[in-house]
Amino acid sequence: MANKQQILEQDNQRRAQGPVTASDPMRLRMEAYVKDLQNRIVEGIEAVDGKKFTRSVWQRPHGGEGITCVMQDGNVMEKAGVAVSVVYSELSKEAIEQMRQDRGKAIEVSDEPLPFFVTGISLVMHAKNPNAPTVHLNYRYFEIMGPDGNPKMWWFGGGADLTPIYLYEEDAVHFHQTYKDACDKFDKDYYPEFKKWCDDYFKNTHRGEQRGIGGIFFDDFNRKPAEEIFPFVQACGDSFLPSYVPILKKRSAMEYTPEMVHWQQLRRGRYVEFNLLWDRGTRFGLQTPCARVEAIMMTLPLTARWEYMHEPEPESREAKLLDVLTNPKDWVPLA
Amino acid sequence: MANKQQILEQDNQRRAQGPVTASDPMRLRMEAYVKDLQNRIVEGIEAVDGKKFTRSVWQRPHGGEGITCVMQDGNVMEKAGVAVSVVYSELSKEAIEQMRQDRGKAIEVSDEPLPFFVTGISLVMHAKNPNAPTVHLNYRYFEIMGPDGNPKMWWFGGGADLTPIYLYEEDAVHFHQTYKDACDKFDKDYYPEFKKWCDDYFKNTHRGEQRGIGGIFFDDFNRKPAEEIFPFVQACGDSFLPSYVPILKKRSAMEYTPEMVHWQQLRRGRYVEFNLLWDRGTRFGLQTPCARVEAIMMTLPLTARWEYMHEPEPESREAKLLDVLTNPKDWVPLA
Repeated sequence: MANKQQILEQDNQRRAQGPVTASDPMRLRMEAYVKDLQNRIVEGIEAVDGKKFTRSVWQRPHGGEGITCVMQDGNVMEKAGVAVSVVYSELSKEAIEQMRQDRGKAIEVSDEPLPFFVTGISLVMHAKNPNAPTVHLNYRYFEIMGPDGNPKMWWFGGGADLTPIYLYEEDAVHFHQTYKDACDKFDKDYYPEFKKWCDDYFKNTHRGEQRGIGGIFFDDFNRKPAEEIFPFVQACGDSFLPSYVPILKKRSAMEYTPEMVHWQQLRRGRYVEFNLLWDRGTRFGLQTPCARVEAIMMTLPLTARWEYMHEPEPESREAKLLDVLTNPKDWVPLA
Repeated sequence: MANKQQILEQDNQRRAQGPVTASDPMRLRMEAYVKDLQNRIVEGIEAVDGKKFTRSVWQRPHGGEGITCVMQDGNVMEKAGVAVSVVYSELSKEAIEQMRQDRGKAIEVSDEPLPFFVTGISLVMHAKNPNAPTVHLNYRYFEIMGPDGNPKMWWFGGGADLTPIYLYEEDAVHFHQTYKDACDKFDKDYYPEFKKWCDDYFKNTHRGEQRGIGGIFFDDFNRKPAEEIFPFVQACGDSFLPSYVPILKKRSAMEYTPEMVHWQQLRRGRYVEFNLLWDRGTRFGLQTPCARVEAIMMTLPLTARWEYMHEPEPESREAKLLDVLTNPKDWVPLA
């Protein structure tokens, strides 16, 4: 019966033999994909910014690794982080029970701890110019390994969403259209479902406000064969640079005032509220044994601001943004 | 059988008749105390700052009220908020079940919703000068009212704690000594117990760091008659101005550099992390029906900063603070 250590060693041997192929286990294929995507995104953003990301790699003491690329105080970026993680670990009885309760997972309880694997990419980019939106992306693959080393249970999750400081409708349309196009190639039902899921998830419930203007989000996604979902996840990941870079370039070239930076800082505060109060990824990350706190907190902006009872002038551009955040819109036709 | 509405009306009639006395129910006496304390603290800080707090009063739609005093961008204060709340509400079966589980409360489950009352004062003050520490205080009285309108179950909770940006040992000693003196007048066991409780509670567990250098904290406190605990809580509340104002005055008169403000902003980020990730008051507040989000979020600093992998120079004053935060000290002899 394979345990976590045997699977890890077997996977490490496979990694040492060269590039993975379509005949390799999904966990190795997804890991290779997110690492390649991380490199492409880092290069793509460096090409816009002119400054380089710093890259840190660390080995997890019980198996797996993390690769964190961060750019702070760049020319265009205030703070940008792109992280990949590869985790081999074991689910305790308590963790299994929690997954059953929280996520309705029908995992058989056994007396042995269940070996699991998760790999993913996550990024947040806060631009300097208040005309340029913040963007977030996350794709991950989770697998519980059975006694034969094959997946006993697995799912994909992830998505991408945009958080403007000032609303440019054409940017919202471009962002959503890019992801709708990626979705539609696989299943026309994906975009309407995942757009709604995104609106439902990225919500500062305590303020009755969306975090931003949405995008797509899915989780526990395994209703088709992994061979069909993996190319879809790749298509979503590949859509990141085309969805964001044109917006970033255009908006970062615009003039802005200190008043606009002031509003940006208040919106940064809302971003912090979501990430610390509501984001499951942050909370789950901080509870993970051997969590690397700095990699999790890399999603927070460089600076943020909270003013008591701040309210934008009626009819102002700031009020217009709040209106859209309290009444989520369909930016492109759903069907 | 008295329900929430009857108790509320009866209490409102009593309020209309003039100042409460020692023969009134504890809920009205504590309410009067925290309102008076709020006024004294607001005046005491205004005397140091020179700027006035703005005061907002709102009525809770289902009974009770809130009084929020905020000073933003003062001469000495970056942001200071002092809030009083008075809440009449009802515990649902689910809330009772949760209190049993989370806090070991042996509340009888009945088919009727249980009327409860809570009143409290809470404050956070972030000073401008990085030499001056942030301070937090909170005292509250909770009561479940039985069919005769008398308390069926009750407890006090609260405390005060100090969060320096730069460590001045004499300030830590002064703060702790003030609260130890207040405690010792009532029970020599209070200070050692509540000092430890404070260290255990105000902890950024994910970073292995205390929020600050502590103070006192207690909760679910009803092991003596309310008549004995109430004067103790008053003594603690009355200790706030003497515990903090001398430190605030002395440190706010000191010179500081932009580098010190930079460190202050990073420490503000840690304060935000504690309040949004760990503070039960914030989480409970946001879950309360008709919560006034701005009053809860008033504890957050005006500005905060997060840098990836920031580490102070070894042996620096910044490193010295972190050392104390990772190894909580006894600032005054416990016994």
